[in-house]
Amino acid sequence: MTDVTDTIKPADANVAELAKKRLDSLTKPQGSLGALEECAWRYAAARGDLWANIEKPTILTFAGDHGVAKTGVSAYPQEVTPQMVANFANGGAAINVLTKRADIVLKVVDIGVAAPCDFPGVVQKKVAPGTQDFTQGPAMTEDQTRQALEIGMKLAEQAIDNGCTLIGTGDMGIGNTTPSAALYTAFLGVSPEQTVGRGTGVDDEHLKIKISAIETALKVNKINESSTTMEVLARLGGFEIAGICGAILGAAAKGVPVVVDGYISGAAAVTAMKFNKHVLDYCFFSHLSAEAGHKHAMSALGIKPLLDLGLRLGEGTGAALAMDLIKASVDILHKMATFADAGVSEASQ
Amino acid sequence: MTDVTDTIKPADANVAELAKKRLDSLTKPQGSLGALEECAWRYAAARGDLWANIEKPTILTFAGDHGVAKTGVSAYPQEVTPQMVANFANGGAAINVLTKRADIVLKVVDIGVAAPCDFPGVVQKKVAPGTQDFTQGPAMTEDQTRQALEIGMKLAEQAIDNGCTLIGTGDMGIGNTTPSAALYTAFLGVSPEQTVGRGTGVDDEHLKIKISAIETALKVNKINESSTTMEVLARLGGFEIAGICGAILGAAAKGVPVVVDGYISGAAAVTAMKFNKHVLDYCFFSHLSAEAGHKHAMSALGIKPLLDLGLRLGEGTGAALAMDLIKASVDILHKMATFADAGVSEASQ
Repeated sequence: MTDVTDTIKPADANVAELAKKRLDSLTKPQGSLGALEECAWRYAAARGDLWANIEKPTILTFAGDHGVAKTGVSAYPQEVTPQMVANFANGGAAINVLTKRADIVLKVVDIGVAAPCDFPGVVQKKVAPGTQDFTQGPAMTEDQTRQALEIGMKLAEQAIDNGCTLIGTGDMGIGNTTPSAALYTAFLGVSPEQTVGRGTGVDDEHLKIKISAIETALKVNKINESSTTMEVLARLGGFEIAGICGAILGAAAKGVPVVVDGYISGAAAVTAMKFNKHVLDYCFFSHLSAEAGHKHAMSALGIKPLLDLGLRLGEGTGAALAMDLIKASVDILHKMATFADAGVSEASQ
Repeated sequence: MTDVTDTIKPADANVAELAKKRLDSLTKPQGSLGALEECAWRYAAARGDLWANIEKPTILTFAGDHGVAKTGVSAYPQEVTPQMVANFANGGAAINVLTKRADIVLKVVDIGVAAPCDFPGVVQKKVAPGTQDFTQGPAMTEDQTRQALEIGMKLAEQAIDNGCTLIGTGDMGIGNTTPSAALYTAFLGVSPEQTVGRGTGVDDEHLKIKISAIETALKVNKINESSTTMEVLARLGGFEIAGICGAILGAAAKGVPVVVDGYISGAAAVTAMKFNKHVLDYCFFSHLSAEAGHKHAMSALGIKPLLDLGLRLGEGTGAALAMDLIKASVDILHKMATFADAGVSEASQ
């Protein structure tokens, strides 16, 4: 675990410069493709190759349950987690529709669902049947957390060994906006009032329950400035969050960029950055979640996600949509004509 | 012209309701796919059919020149318009790359370029070799404007007759952010200071020239509250803007939605809405342009465009990117499982 994390290097600054220079030579006013240009040079720099293509894009969707769900932080009962994993297995969920149409490989992983999830095609990697209630003590042991991180890393590495050069992340887990909010608070110093949102749709009363659960969890688990990243993740996180975090670390260590979905995946990405700051070079933040706290978290990181469509579903749906923009950006970098090639006059100012 | 415009009907409110009802029955929290859900029901309502698919998406990119370009409103010389049309014909421009990868049909139309543009594949529909300088008098005669509108309508109708069910718009024309800004000012009452931006990249001095050109044009052409839509378009617009406006009207009259590109196409869409307010039901605003005035114009209309990527290129590039989101939204509407189908529990609140 620590070994892999230590091998993550910054993206290639020389390739970034080459890519920017090429973008400026293409037949368009400089910078006129905005965020698309940034995606193009960042992808090239992360891959260390100006001409790197996107091959076999793959989304890893991790499912897990949360002890805190029993305290009433979600509008949905916990039984929805395995029901939705079954729906993934049957191809009926939003993430199925969005990955299929875009030729994205989808791997669904049971990394910690409370109920059995032995549906066809679901990767069986259950560390435990759900976390403990983090308002009473640690959500996971550090050993469990390490296992979940390694599962994520391995799955990213396997996808990459199969030829994948762009990983996306996704989550399923009733109640998981609450531990995610706790991680944002712990790592970014954003208050629980700001990081907490309505998740899949709780009302005012339940919003108060969420905020109070996070405040209790931070206190009970003695989270403070001297807590290590591992301690924070184990005590406040969840199996699917640790799995996503591991996938991000594993991909970054192999020089493969990651399209981070929304609120839950974002919390995993922030955790991964705490393990190694260079992780940021490999992350593409796909969309700004409608979950209120995401805005505060992203602005604390100084990041403007690619899309802002009011999504709040998770599963990897935002990542699936944003992958098309990143693919488009790489095509722009590689396939447009230069001013010289096309005989077009440049700006006079 | 007037006849076609009069035939535009509101989108089908019953189909909109059916689509919203179906979206709420799909295995996701209600509304959790945000703007994607809005795209889905709006597309269905515009087509008048819950099960309408997107077939043969087509972008019409109109090119024209502007007399006002001689006054120094652009960073690029006017010769760039035909050079870029040649680049479109050769497949080297951003719009070529973005349409090709997404299986979008691209039609490039010379509707008023100053120089000859008889390149292979370019639709030859030149009304005149550029407009007149609108700081001296009308940019176009009303007869020319009517011709340009009809060219746009016919091309949209032809695409639809060939099976296209989603039209996108694009523009090419050095100097055309200036007439577009003038149209926003005339139709939306946004001041020239707010509607004007840096186009493809002018400096402070040239920004003043643009603002002054618009103020002069509004005065010289006697634009006021009693001016008709036709008068405003003829005196302040351009051939490509009128062509785009015609394409939007022609598509809406046939019940086919239009993906409006950015700043210039937006000015054409506002003009089309002035001809018939129901046009709005058929318009998808693809992206918020980096051209400063677009924000003010969109907010005057109460519209939040789908993408906000800092694009300021035109050509139809934003439309090409947004088409993928609209296609994704229709797939969501048609292909996801319902709660009942999938046996997933619904929210308890």
